[in-house]
Amino acid sequence: MNIIDNAAVSQHLAHVRIVMVNTTLPANIGSALRAMKTMGLSKLVLVAPKTYPHPDIDALAAGATDLIEQIEIVESLEDAIKDCHLVFGTSARTRTIPWPLLDARPAAQKSMNAVLNEQQEIAVVFGREDRGLTNEELAMANYHVTIPVNSDYGVLNVAQAIQIISYEMRMATVELMDKEVDPDAVMKVTDEEAMHWDEPLVTHEQMEQFYPHIEKMLADIEFMDPKNPRLLPLRLRRLFGRIQLDKMEYHLLRGIFTRVQALNNGTWKKSKTKEDQPNA
Amino acid sequence: MNIIDNAAVSQHLAHVRIVMVNTTLPANIGSALRAMKTMGLSKLVLVAPKTYPHPDIDALAAGATDLIEQIEIVESLEDAIKDCHLVFGTSARTRTIPWPLLDARPAAQKSMNAVLNEQQEIAVVFGREDRGLTNEELAMANYHVTIPVNSDYGVLNVAQAIQIISYEMRMATVELMDKEVDPDAVMKVTDEEAMHWDEPLVTHEQMEQFYPHIEKMLADIEFMDPKNPRLLPLRLRRLFGRIQLDKMEYHLLRGIFTRVQALNNGTWKKSKTKEDQPNA
Repeated sequence: MNIIDNAAVSQHLAHVRIVMVNTTLPANIGSALRAMKTMGLSKLVLVAPKTYPHPDIDALAAGATDLIEQIEIVESLEDAIKDCHLVFGTSARTRTIPWPLLDARPAAQKSMNAVLNEQQEIAVVFGREDRGLTNEELAMANYHVTIPVNSDYGVLNVAQAIQIISYEMRMATVELMDKEVDPDAVMKVTDEEAMHWDEPLVTHEQMEQFYPHIEKMLADIEFMDPKNPRLLPLRLRRLFGRIQLDKMEYHLLRGIFTRVQALNNGTWKKSKTKEDQPNA
Repeated sequence: MNIIDNAAVSQHLAHVRIVMVNTTLPANIGSALRAMKTMGLSKLVLVAPKTYPHPDIDALAAGATDLIEQIEIVESLEDAIKDCHLVFGTSARTRTIPWPLLDARPAAQKSMNAVLNEQQEIAVVFGREDRGLTNEELAMANYHVTIPVNSDYGVLNVAQAIQIISYEMRMATVELMDKEVDPDAVMKVTDEEAMHWDEPLVTHEQMEQFYPHIEKMLADIEFMDPKNPRLLPLRLRRLFGRIQLDKMEYHLLRGIFTRVQALNNGTWKKSKTKEDQPNA
């Protein structure tokens, strides 16, 4: 194993933010900071914490007080992840619509690949102590991530889960940097890892304009009943969420939706030469 | 990914004991039990604990009370490990005498290999909260094991370290059992292979009907010129190729294409009620 520069590891890990939603116990925020700092993560975003600030945060954070100063407080999950490219929602339970689900290790490998090769911003979102994330919050994620545990016992508390996710993020970073440092190392990269993308990827915020557009288009052509869309919006999020569209693809698809809408409401007409041809 | 029998995992992990030497805080013993149980480990040996029993142990152990009953108390490290085949000493510091040192992950892989293939008994020994293991105690170990951390910050507390060691032991067990269940399984699973999915994915053959369909639809609505499609077909393949559609998504998208085509050639018309409404 090569010698890895600790500061460089932390620099990569600065692109991974931990997001805690509606946390009740300040002690859990403090423990989370400590867990993050032991592994070199630095960015914690709190979505509407129940109690903040609180001396328990400082007490449990031990020496990680510099991270307390960097905490970002926002009002909604939307605000916490809007500039992120890849969002993981943590989920212990099986949901009605299964989402693309990764174990902590491949999720961390995917994340750090995206950071090192494409400077992506990553978020891992943790829910409330008692009931986790809502289905709406989980639907904002590209992937769900789970930590394999003893199913006869139950789940980790939120600080323990952050500890293991942070550990896997660090391990994945060191592994990738090791590969870079040693040119003779066998590059067991998958297609996805090997792919250096030519176009920048769209952010979560842009995708939040994408979904209303495709839904409106499908409502226009009566493929979806907006009053009773059933599982369709969720299926679309699951499908396009795991693609990670680049900007050109994004504009390509939105262009198609706009054309279909214009065709549907008569503001766009087929050109003369084609008008008499049957479309099979 | 194969379905792994949780009870069988725990049975293998029963051969791994966690040994805590001269622990001062009962809360750390309780937290250690909880950390172990979440990962399926069950055997804790305490070498001359400072305070035992203590209500904090029960409080922090949460639902892991069955493990409290199984705790073994001994007077010396020698007694704790005498029937073990492979002993790891945890060490954060570099010692005067270098010892064979493994990171947590390869240490866990080595351990579980020894359990599954040779029914060995494994011990991982953790030291005092303030000063770890003595040189004499470390010298009783076959290997030293370390958890990679942010060296600018410091070390994990003993319960956090037990959490990560236990997690790696579980991961190594599941990985080995996976290989046993499926002899053809490739060890290095890719993201996609590691992902649990509810619907079967479509085959390459089905996708070869998908692309002509979307291209024909786009030609119909004159979004693409079939005589000069430029890079569009390639972009669509790159986009949908990396999704790996499942069957339901596949039929959903092809249903949308068919609707657009029918709208375009007039074989499908909007319902009466909608006809007068403008479509934004």
